Amino acid sequence: MTELFNVLAPGDALARLQQRLRPSPRVERLATRDALDRVLAEPIVAPETLPAFPRSTMDGFAVRAADTFGASEALPAYLTIVGEVLMGRAAEVRLGPGEAARIATGGMLPPGADAVVMVEQTQEVDPTTIEVLRPVAPGEHVLQVGEDVAQGERLLEAGHTLRPQDIGGLLALGIVEVPVAARLRVAIVSGGDEVVPPERTPGPGQIRDINSYTLASLVRRLGHEPILLGIAPDVFEELDRLARRAMELGDVVILSAGSSVSTRDMTAQVIQGLGEPGVLVHGVSLKPGKPTILALCNGRPVFGLPGNPVSCMVTFDLFVAPTLAQLSGTRSGPPRRSVTARLARNVASVPGREDYLQVRLERRDGELWADPVFGKSGLIYTLVRADGMLHVGLDVGGISAGELVEVVLF
Amino acid sequence: MTELFNVLAPGDALARLQQRLRPSPRVERLATRDALDRVLAEPIVAPETLPAFPRSTMDGFAVRAADTFGASEALPAYLTIVGEVLMGRAAEVRLGPGEAARIATGGMLPPGADAVVMVEQTQEVDPTTIEVLRPVAPGEHVLQVGEDVAQGERLLEAGHTLRPQDIGGLLALGIVEVPVAARLRVAIVSGGDEVVPPERTPGPGQIRDINSYTLASLVRRLGHEPILLGIAPDVFEELDRLARRAMELGDVVILSAGSSVSTRDMTAQVIQGLGEPGVLVHGVSLKPGKPTILALCNGRPVFGLPGNPVSCMVTFDLFVAPTLAQLSGTRSGPPRRSVTARLARNVASVPGREDYLQVRLERRDGELWADPVFGKSGLIYTLVRADGMLHVGLDVGGISAGELVEVVLF
Repeated sequence: MTELFNVLAPGDALARLQQRLRPSPRVERLATRDALDRVLAEPIVAPETLPAFPRSTMDGFAVRAADTFGASEALPAYLTIVGEVLMGRAAEVRLGPGEAARIATGGMLPPGADAVVMVEQTQEVDPTTIEVLRPVAPGEHVLQVGEDVAQGERLLEAGHTLRPQDIGGLLALGIVEVPVAARLRVAIVSGGDEVVPPERTPGPGQIRDINSYTLASLVRRLGHEPILLGIAPDVFEELDRLARRAMELGDVVILSAGSSVSTRDMTAQVIQGLGEPGVLVHGVSLKPGKPTILALCNGRPVFGLPGNPVSCMVTFDLFVAPTLAQLSGTRSGPPRRSVTARLARNVASVPGREDYLQVRLERRDGELWADPVFGKSGLIYTLVRADGMLHVGLDVGGISAGELVEVVLF
Repeated sequence: MTELFNVLAPGDALARLQQRLRPSPRVERLATRDALDRVLAEPIVAPETLPAFPRSTMDGFAVRAADTFGASEALPAYLTIVGEVLMGRAAEVRLGPGEAARIATGGMLPPGADAVVMVEQTQEVDPTTIEVLRPVAPGEHVLQVGEDVAQGERLLEAGHTLRPQDIGGLLALGIVEVPVAARLRVAIVSGGDEVVPPERTPGPGQIRDINSYTLASLVRRLGHEPILLGIAPDVFEELDRLARRAMELGDVVILSAGSSVSTRDMTAQVIQGLGEPGVLVHGVSLKPGKPTILALCNGRPVFGLPGNPVSCMVTFDLFVAPTLAQLSGTRSGPPRRSVTARLARNVASVPGREDYLQVRLERRDGELWADPVFGKSGLIYTLVRADGMLHVGLDVGGISAGELVEVVLF
């Protein structure tokens, strides 16, 4: 089990896990109004047509377009007002030739009418007569039946994450319940003889647990449910006990182990014992985050993330986040939230390794600059002081100051 | 009260409201672990030093750096192993000259030691003796006391939105509770004789309420609390009654009124009666979204947003979202989530007006293209089919196909 025999590139490491995963998301039905940011478990097909009736898009008069042909300010068309369409009601009038009905934006076109003249293009001669000063084409200023949505149309695909406008669109069609992927339960175990809960005052040589809460927050941000199992001391039986409990409670398990080689080896051994096939990847060509473990145990992904807080966050983003997306059936969503900035100083890297650097963004003379926040490993506040991460690719030796770079915000 | 006398540019309209707002956010104390994405109401100052003790960043041996000076593979330095530092404990040994102690990553440096030699740079001669093959400088592989955070240091400013790493960082210092701005209550009233709740099957001329739920979702996405007051018919007294109830329940009030001029005028009259100074802006040089009303009534911002779902969403983003940020004291956060794409076809606009177009993003030959989703006003599914909004500035006559544009994702 000694680690880092076969260090894989991050992409290859993730693929090794993802190829073996067989997602079968649990589905739950939710009230549509409460389904914001949830992932559709099934495609949605329109049960109705939208709009269900021809609607005016302007305030004005419903007319027969042919009655307005040739109309101009010099030679207006005269129409007789035979009624008014009330909002939310079927029109009570039927238009004959030479007739018009008052209509407001959103009103239902009366039978016989096929267009709307804007009120600004008319003049009232007397309470029952208007002059139309401009011709309208058939269908002008009218939303036709089904122009928004046709019945039976496939509206949204499985895997789509519901946005505010999707919630509105579904409700517009009377779809008041939707099937969504259940939130994933992510069981998190922190490890280390030196780690105490945040409420405790650490004794000499002790530090407070950070990773449990950073990881829980990252899980929440993705819409899933963290389950914190606490801190395991560096004793095989204790870590093993908590890891087995995590396997019972979680769809996904994260062990954020200590940073020494011996505790990392112990973590790998514990994971190897959790189920078949066990550890798939032990060590990734990545900085920070080299000693990452990816495993699949009895169908559940299990991650052994480095104890160093920066590595822990980087490896969560690279490995856990895409696995959660895969498990919940999320289709490749919009690109990550990122900005383009100019690098403020030279950054060295090693070809054959991916690097992630924390950077702080600063606007100078209207331009955005990314300034690397350097710090030894083990520091947490380099993350707090940074605005985002800069990725230096596998085969890049470094990036020069002044180059444009993409910064993923966090 | 007839509308659109003085149509303002969107930026000027918002400024007119924001200049008059006097935010005094309600503050609540939350458990830090539950404060993800909340806005700090007060700055946070470090109550302690981090790390609190000198920590090793490597597995190896704690040493006195001077004892290793000049060491090389040819001429190693010999040191006597006098003990081992256990994780989470104060070191029990004190190093004298020529002495070393085993230490793991994260371990506390023993008194007398000032550096760590990586285990890879040593060879064990016998159980109590090592050869050091490379010199280390004082402080090498050691996190010094306070290197992460100094006691009394200002860590985070009021107005900062807490990210996962901030939660971890606060807990690392034992800050288990934080003062945050209370969520804002945003009271929402939909209006229109034609509008029925989504559960109801619309009769002829009727449509289901969309805006209440789209707006509620937009409010939730920003971390605030929507309060839905239902649908007011187009009767002054009824809209007035619901608006007054909204003023009682909400920190902010949104009336999403009908689309006809008469209902918009009625909305403006209702808002004018809600308190001083009343309507500040009625009409904005914006498409879609021209008939927007911004008001301040007895210290509460009140918005009259157009009934058309696309306009409603655009004007929420432009006017309501920044007002909520101002009220909760949010400091200008990271830039909006956006991508750069190439425009797929010519887009016309009118100078003197800001336009917002829905676009669909598509990757072709590795490049991202933004294809405008055109549709008459009143359609909701143009929003559902789109991936983002393209902004055409106030003084731009149009944008040509092939130009690079910024698309704000939604």
